[in-house]
Amino acid sequence: MPFARTPRPPYYAVIFSSQRSAGDRGYAETAARMVELAHGMPGFLGMETARDDAGFGITTAFFDSEEAIKRWRDHPEHAAARKRGRAEWYRHFELRIARVERAYGADGAHG
Amino acid sequence: MPFARTPRPPYYAVIFSSQRSAGDRGYAETAARMVELAHGMPGFLGMETARDDAGFGITTAFFDSEEAIKRWRDHPEHAAARKRGRAEWYRHFELRIARVERAYGADGAHG
Repeated sequence: MPFARTPRPPYYAVIFSSQRSAGDRGYAETAARMVELAHGMPGFLGMETARDDAGFGITTAFFDSEEAIKRWRDHPEHAAARKRGRAEWYRHFELRIARVERAYGADGAHG
Repeated sequence: MPFARTPRPPYYAVIFSSQRSAGDRGYAETAARMVELAHGMPGFLGMETARDDAGFGITTAFFDSEEAIKRWRDHPEHAAARKRGRAEWYRHFELRIARVERAYGADGAHG
């Protein structure tokens, strides 16, 4: 199930888009650990991620407050992973913090 | 260049995540047309999209105001495409409208 089951807005989103550099260099293992770590953070509401064949990816992580995002940012293991990301894993990235104000989801007719 | 060159926040994001159904059925052509159409909308700031091998994708589209998002939602060609999306192209989707409050981007060391 790739979709996050988020509550009614408002809540907060960390939108992280990135272009991977070539080679794994420990990326997959750390990415999996970050997913595990995020799920244990207070205020974490869920996450979604998609990465295409060219190595461009978007991950959205949802939290109940800006304070929860700050705790996630300041977690030592996450901070160390970000440092490795800049040095080894990403050619470029964009990080956006946003307040989700409205949300709507549905199954398609072929659901 | 898969990254949107967005201005300093605040601005607004439409975060659309979706699981494609099997088969194209006109999807690729309409998706390309929607990208073209979005770029011509007043207040449009850029978009990013990633879809993985399993057909799960996230698209973020950025606008300068909620009014611009409403105009995009109400464009007849976009409304018709959304209707086809629900009927033919998506097993499930989630749409979130968010106000981007902070943003940060950087090149990696392997940029």
